[in-house]
Amino acid sequence: MSACVLYHFAFDPGSRTARLALGEAKKAFTETLVRPWEDDCPVAGLNPSGMPPVLRVTEDSRSLTLCEPAAILGWLEDASREPFLMPTDPAERAETRRLVAWFDRRFTDEVNAVLLHERMEKPLLRLGPPEARALRAGREALRSHLAMLEDVLAGRDALSGRRISQADFVAAAHLSVLDYFGEVSWANWPAVKTWYMKLKSRPCFRPLLADRFPGVPPSTWYADLDF
Amino acid sequence: MSACVLYHFAFDPGSRTARLALGEAKKAFTETLVRPWEDDCPVAGLNPSGMPPVLRVTEDSRSLTLCEPAAILGWLEDASREPFLMPTDPAERAETRRLVAWFDRRFTDEVNAVLLHERMEKPLLRLGPPEARALRAGREALRSHLAMLEDVLAGRDALSGRRISQADFVAAAHLSVLDYFGEVSWANWPAVKTWYMKLKSRPCFRPLLADRFPGVPPSTWYADLDF
Repeated sequence: MSACVLYHFAFDPGSRTARLALGEAKKAFTETLVRPWEDDCPVAGLNPSGMPPVLRVTEDSRSLTLCEPAAILGWLEDASREPFLMPTDPAERAETRRLVAWFDRRFTDEVNAVLLHERMEKPLLRLGPPEARALRAGREALRSHLAMLEDVLAGRDALSGRRISQADFVAAAHLSVLDYFGEVSWANWPAVKTWYMKLKSRPCFRPLLADRFPGVPPSTWYADLDF
Repeated sequence: MSACVLYHFAFDPGSRTARLALGEAKKAFTETLVRPWEDDCPVAGLNPSGMPPVLRVTEDSRSLTLCEPAAILGWLEDASREPFLMPTDPAERAETRRLVAWFDRRFTDEVNAVLLHERMEKPLLRLGPPEARALRAGREALRSHLAMLEDVLAGRDALSGRRISQADFVAAAHLSVLDYFGEVSWANWPAVKTWYMKLKSRPCFRPLLADRFPGVPPSTWYADLDF
């Protein structure tokens, strides 16, 4: 019997990836909510990067510390008897890995580092109001990423092929944070919208839809399964 | 029988990771050297990010396009009958994944984006001479990463545990580019130096040591196995 504790920040896309994957795997876990920018954040003593998510797994008397989404996703895959969120087809495996890397780097650098900085980090760290020019640049970048996803999803049910993979949960975790802040104009991207609606209806998504950011209510459609 | 073509740029850390892993796996491959910043770079038609490395594998009449280091490392692991560059122990697997993510993000953002920009991208793109303040910041960041590696390697033979893993090749690929430009002060980091000497002596490293950057000779110890 194993016990899992997830250290996470509710609006961190990496933390959301971990919550979705744990939920999808039906792994029970307890939560420790952390604020990684604070000096006494417990994650600092667990992950050298100081960042959530971190999953502590205690099995019998041994414990395992899984730092970063890749380690958590990898551990869930390793622990599963059947393929879980990694496809079996070599081309789909390659596409899953490409897309996960895309969100880790390109999406994070071009969209999150701008839009989430303006909409989320500035109020959290009291850095003043958002800047119009940065918001415009971030929204423009988000549009080009959504156009890329729309192209990919025009010919596939899931991002890397026929079945849901790590790529879908990583992408949905990122988009769900932006969606909270009303930054995703779903009507312009019908294939992305259909794909996201299906993911959002899965039980693993439910806890994320109940998250609330202090002082900012979610977009009216954020928790609506039929938006 | 399969044929592999690697599209790579010799001084890109991700491309070097792919070359090291392919060499270590003793996979024969032909090389197409690319310049990703040029308009007609063939990688633009293969990888949506436009970036090397890309590995094209043709097997019988089917072909597979592997974009980004993660897809190439993953494919090599999948294709291997025995564990190749992923440890079998769960804690070592988690540590490998944590460290690969560390280099992909932290090292890339804090060190490469500054030091390789000043030393490598500026001459390639004719952006003028390096700036002293940026060089100082990049070198300070590199020192803190080397101190982290020194701590890790004080108690282990390889970065994620007892055996060489993906983490060692990813880390060595990054450091080898900086070492070409004389940016690594090995004498200050004895455990890192011993670890790097062992990696550098492996046959897979040899092609990298023969690389030459136009107009910049390598540091005098770059290709020296007993530096």
